[in-house]
Amino acid sequence: MKVGGLLTSAGINIGLCVLFLSLYSILRKQPQNVKVYFGRRIAEENNRLRDAFILERFVPSPSWIVKSLRCTEDELLATAGLDAVVFNRILVFSIRIFSLATILCVFGVLPLNYFGQDMDHVRIPSASLETFTIGNVQERSRWLWVHCLVLYIITIVACVLLYLEYKHIARLRLLHISRTSSNPSHFTVLVRGIPKSRTESFSRTVENFFTKYHASTYLSHQVVYKVGKVQKIVSGAKKVYRKFKHFKGTTVDQRCRPIAFQCCFCGASSNSFQLLPSDFEQEGETPVNGSSLSLPDEECGSAFVFFKTRYAALVVAEILQTSNPMRWVTSLAPERDDIYWSNLWLPYKQLWIRHTATLLGSIIFMFLFLIPVTFIQGLTQLEQLQQRLPFLRGILKKKYMTQLITGYLPSVILQIFLYTVPPTMMLFSTLEGPISHSERKKSACCKVLYFTIWNVFFVNVLSGSAISQVIALSSPRDIPMQLAKAVPVQATFFTTYVLTSGWASLSSELMQLFGLTWIFVRRYLLRMKEDSDLLYSFPYHTEVPKVLLFGLLGFTCSALAPMILPFLVLYFCLGYVIYRNQFLNVYCTKYDTGGLYWPIAHNTTIFSLILTQVICVGVFGLKKSPVAAGFTIPLIIFTLLFNQYCRKRHLPLFKTFPAQNLIDMDKEDHQSGRTEDLHQRLHSAYFQFPDTDDIPLEGVQTAGIDEDRSGTSGESSREENKADKPKSDLSHPTLDGLPVSRLRNAVRSLGSIWRPQKRELPV
Amino acid sequence: MKVGGLLTSAGINIGLCVLFLSLYSILRKQPQNVKVYFGRRIAEENNRLRDAFILERFVPSPSWIVKSLRCTEDELLATAGLDAVVFNRILVFSIRIFSLATILCVFGVLPLNYFGQDMDHVRIPSASLETFTIGNVQERSRWLWVHCLVLYIITIVACVLLYLEYKHIARLRLLHISRTSSNPSHFTVLVRGIPKSRTESFSRTVENFFTKYHASTYLSHQVVYKVGKVQKIVSGAKKVYRKFKHFKGTTVDQRCRPIAFQCCFCGASSNSFQLLPSDFEQEGETPVNGSSLSLPDEECGSAFVFFKTRYAALVVAEILQTSNPMRWVTSLAPERDDIYWSNLWLPYKQLWIRHTATLLGSIIFMFLFLIPVTFIQGLTQLEQLQQRLPFLRGILKKKYMTQLITGYLPSVILQIFLYTVPPTMMLFSTLEGPISHSERKKSACCKVLYFTIWNVFFVNVLSGSAISQVIALSSPRDIPMQLAKAVPVQATFFTTYVLTSGWASLSSELMQLFGLTWIFVRRYLLRMKEDSDLLYSFPYHTEVPKVLLFGLLGFTCSALAPMILPFLVLYFCLGYVIYRNQFLNVYCTKYDTGGLYWPIAHNTTIFSLILTQVICVGVFGLKKSPVAAGFTIPLIIFTLLFNQYCRKRHLPLFKTFPAQNLIDMDKEDHQSGRTEDLHQRLHSAYFQFPDTDDIPLEGVQTAGIDEDRSGTSGESSREENKADKPKSDLSHPTLDGLPVSRLRNAVRSLGSIWRPQKRELPV
Repeated sequence: MKVGGLLTSAGINIGLCVLFLSLYSILRKQPQNVKVYFGRRIAEENNRLRDAFILERFVPSPSWIVKSLRCTEDELLATAGLDAVVFNRILVFSIRIFSLATILCVFGVLPLNYFGQDMDHVRIPSASLETFTIGNVQERSRWLWVHCLVLYIITIVACVLLYLEYKHIARLRLLHISRTSSNPSHFTVLVRGIPKSRTESFSRTVENFFTKYHASTYLSHQVVYKVGKVQKIVSGAKKVYRKFKHFKGTTVDQRCRPIAFQCCFCGASSNSFQLLPSDFEQEGETPVNGSSLSLPDEECGSAFVFFKTRYAALVVAEILQTSNPMRWVTSLAPERDDIYWSNLWLPYKQLWIRHTATLLGSIIFMFLFLIPVTFIQGLTQLEQLQQRLPFLRGILKKKYMTQLITGYLPSVILQIFLYTVPPTMMLFSTLEGPISHSERKKSACCKVLYFTIWNVFFVNVLSGSAISQVIALSSPRDIPMQLAKAVPVQATFFTTYVLTSGWASLSSELMQLFGLTWIFVRRYLLRMKEDSDLLYSFPYHTEVPKVLLFGLLGFTCSALAPMILPFLVLYFCLGYVIYRNQFLNVYCTKYDTGGLYWPIAHNTTIFSLILTQVICVGVFGLKKSPVAAGFTIPLIIFTLLFNQYCRKRHLPLFKTFPAQNLIDMDKEDHQSGRTEDLHQRLHSAYFQFPDTDDIPLEGVQTAGIDEDRSGTSGESSREENKADKPKSDLSHPTLDGLPVSRLRNAVRSLGSIWRPQKRELPV
Repeated sequence: MKVGGLLTSAGINIGLCVLFLSLYSILRKQPQNVKVYFGRRIAEENNRLRDAFILERFVPSPSWIVKSLRCTEDELLATAGLDAVVFNRILVFSIRIFSLATILCVFGVLPLNYFGQDMDHVRIPSASLETFTIGNVQERSRWLWVHCLVLYIITIVACVLLYLEYKHIARLRLLHISRTSSNPSHFTVLVRGIPKSRTESFSRTVENFFTKYHASTYLSHQVVYKVGKVQKIVSGAKKVYRKFKHFKGTTVDQRCRPIAFQCCFCGASSNSFQLLPSDFEQEGETPVNGSSLSLPDEECGSAFVFFKTRYAALVVAEILQTSNPMRWVTSLAPERDDIYWSNLWLPYKQLWIRHTATLLGSIIFMFLFLIPVTFIQGLTQLEQLQQRLPFLRGILKKKYMTQLITGYLPSVILQIFLYTVPPTMMLFSTLEGPISHSERKKSACCKVLYFTIWNVFFVNVLSGSAISQVIALSSPRDIPMQLAKAVPVQATFFTTYVLTSGWASLSSELMQLFGLTWIFVRRYLLRMKEDSDLLYSFPYHTEVPKVLLFGLLGFTCSALAPMILPFLVLYFCLGYVIYRNQFLNVYCTKYDTGGLYWPIAHNTTIFSLILTQVICVGVFGLKKSPVAAGFTIPLIIFTLLFNQYCRKRHLPLFKTFPAQNLIDMDKEDHQSGRTEDLHQRLHSAYFQFPDTDDIPLEGVQTAGIDEDRSGTSGESSREENKADKPKSDLSHPTLDGLPVSRLRNAVRSLGSIWRPQKRELPV
């Protein structure tokens, strides 16, 4: 590929970016899009924009950029949670290290590469991009020490920055805990694998166990109920019946609604809320009779156990309870909004086999994916394409087509294939059996990350040089050498990948094309009223791997083919502005891992650094410079030691909570007399909404769309209206057999219909 | 190698074995060897054998075998500890699985292999051993399913047996805890990384921290003191001075003692105990002045903290204490006799780097060791030997020489080289910084195990087939194929290895050649009195890897070259008798890991099974039997799943203690009113003997020899006379600056000279 080709590609992408950004700055001012671009703020502030026609609305403006940049970290933490801050820090780290790398490499390495060989230099636009890589440096060149030095500087600065970020985020994590001091999840332990007894109910077993062994700290408990298949069918039938009654009663204009949509996206127009209660009230009045209609819930071997202090809960969660490690398995409970109910019912004994199976599944998926990728690689090599599709020969001879095909098309096709990956990995993560949404997303994030690094980086590098071999796994001993040969060559592809995948995905992220389209379809094609809200939580499982992959590309190409770096820095800067804007305006933080994405980012960065160093050793070897290669090896050891130190020094904080902080918080509560209040709130916090909850119609819609995006079926984020629930009284009886709490739940959930919906849109 | 060669080798070894066993049964009856063969029992029972001359003494007898077999597991547990039982269970498991394998393979597989090809069979003694391996089976043979079936049976039975053993040992481990209910280590937490304060001493810091955060359960603490270099020199000088006075005062006959030995093995004749006190008494009377002579001890950032209950200690040990994971690092304290004092003084921050460094060191050692091994491989190939050493050609042409060299010599030389491995690995493990002897030995055991498997199995298999390649690491993808080719060929070598290394090492273990020689040298060459005792603890770090290696050889050869199996079963049976005898009579259990060798054995066995299956897949592939190869792959998956299940089901019990059991024990103590008594004993349990302890002369000798065996310098097992120490009073003041406890220690340790030494021999 020529420099001209790259510049064409860059030009197209910059043009598209500017276009999209301008378009965004206009679209965001249109009142009909307010739900797409300000979902979070609407949900929070209940304000609305003017609907009047003003010229200003149609003039692009950069004010949103300014707003996004002005937001401080504390504000971000307060509005979007710790995970958003971590994501932000990943971007900040990337901007810092790659700005430095750009300066070093563009002014230090690039001229060396360009003038590396005695040759006639053509005009720069028609110069091959490979002239700018280390491939152009002569063998045994004395200037290779510059590359080595640059590698040293980048590694050491990266390590220092990583250390500072790790420390900062660990501090934030502790602060996060102490700030959310009234969080009921701190007092709650999720117990799984409760042994089944013939004489006692689970509830009684739990009570006996904890009053016997943790009497001084045990407060109360709440058994998790499993909803059987039969009951699901029954409640489904009830739901349909209710809807039927509802439609009959409200004389909805059914003509202009295609019948197919009534069931799935069941209108739930805003006035329906006024009418529904009359049906429910009858049911609500006879809650005991209501239970005769629904079959009794099955208790499953899980329970939430509440403790008097945070420290006591932590202790019970961390200590092995009995001599059978598959029974009485304890862990700190996730927050109420974060719980993934349907997985709580899974028998704990199943989990290890689910883990193994999904691991195998992901690995197989990872390798099967190679087939389309290999086909795409064919497109980048024109001769191959001409051979295979001879009828294209005429078109391919045109120059701009050549540039388009080599520079742009492969990445686009790859991109389209890659869109199927996050939903698939999310599905795997769901099957794995995580008990919280955040855990599920984090697990999917790891899977997508491994997938992306393998399929975008390694497969491209290893098979890009020889299209015929499908599985590029030759002997691992040769991999460094093969990488060393291939990375400088493939740098061109990576540069275009940054331009297309990186920049384009940022633009589409900002534009929220999916949301816009959906709104358009709903409004103009389906003619629905727009009382459903599009509130997603941030898709960390797609964005974190993306950013980390670009980091990997940046590090590996930095000293070898530095042409990629300026584009990368631009990407990160743009990403910084756009993601912050999205955090502030679009996404709603429903759940939070508490900064657990940082260790992933740290490990990936260390991996990238080591990979870079190994490749450099290989390249120096190829260039017959044993001194430079020899000097790089201590750097690898240094990086490994640094990683080891970070694991010892910071990682434990991301796995558990320190006793000191929790005890201090407990004492503070005790002194300020808040303990009683906190204990009272605990009981209401973990009331289990039945999965067949007939009610929160406003939630179903959200969940459905959220799931469409993440690609998994089912019951993901239905329970996100904790704030709607009233406080319960302290005395929470746990009768054997008949779950009193469940009945109360039913009444309560029915009650939630009357109250104004928090996320209802201002009309 | 021919069958005749193998039988010659087996004959030699069986003869040697019988000779050694008879010799042992005579030698053990000689009164002068009583310390060698009954060290443990003498130490325990203080009895002694008759010195009279009886003919019976010189007649071989099998009574010791009967005694060894009669001993029940409970007796073994009571006398030699849980680790001995685990070792015993490893042997029992091996005997069971390989007996089954022998029956299956000798009657099922062996004839198939032998008649696998249409060929003229020569008389069996001159038949090549390779006729009995799977190499003799025709390609595409329909009989390969028998091999596959045998593999299935062996794997499944092995898994069932492993599961039962795991369960049994986990139960024993819990029993072991509850039986040693008065063990002070259950109540004690070792705290390291105590932050240094300018205003307070460590002692005060510890007290403040634990009274603040664990006030309800904290009892008291004991700071660990570090003895500086200067003080070591001073006390060394004092020691020399005392010895000089001692020799002057007792008019020792110095002529017949070579002067060189006075310093190292300083006689310490039994009457010296009566004379020493007069010197010490003066020091003992002015303990405060005494401290002016010795420099004040430096407190180091470690302390033993005592808690009121076992559960409280466990909780503190398991929970992360503060937000800096490198400070206030807690772990359950090892038992008093098990503590490795000099490592307690290491700053906790150093440990991660020591870990990494020793890991690197062990890996380098593992690979450098290849060089002599490769040379040894040359010996097995006669042609190579004749080429290199042409002057040997005449000798080598003789037939018995050929048999000797191919069948016997290589293993012997390898064996000699292997003797240097355990001391080296023990040295690495010491440098790693473990805080207990048992941890050090366990770590050395793992290192020796990896080393043995790599250097005996893999290197022999991979480079045995091609002597020229020093580093056999070719591409890992081909390793299964290469193993499949090489294992049947190398089976002959492994068979002779079992004969020489296995049987011979058992005989020498039983004979205690080192101990015998040492006694002989002391008595007849150095003319010393024999008041030093030879009390070792069992060398798990050499014996566990040995047994596991033979297991690996057995599994990998079972279906492919079953000729090895009968010899292996004989080895395990002999080992069963001999090791039990040694546990009962020779070795003294000074410390115990509590069964932690079992997970190592389990993992190694699983690894052996998987390796066997992978090799079989390769062999079936070579024999062009895709059905058999395909049927083996589910077996690999099954074995991995089984391992995963065991990790979930049993492994946690080997990492921590279950709360339920500890709480039950605490309650029992409370009900029976033993708590107070236990608390009082805690204070005396962890009194620190200064490392420069001037006194226990009888201990130095033991330690020196023990260290010679394990090959590390220094302070290993000097602190093994806990029982000698008197109970201290409850009030144990921890004054700032001046460590009162230390002064008291000094007095106490001086006092220990007067009392009769427990391990002193009955003359």
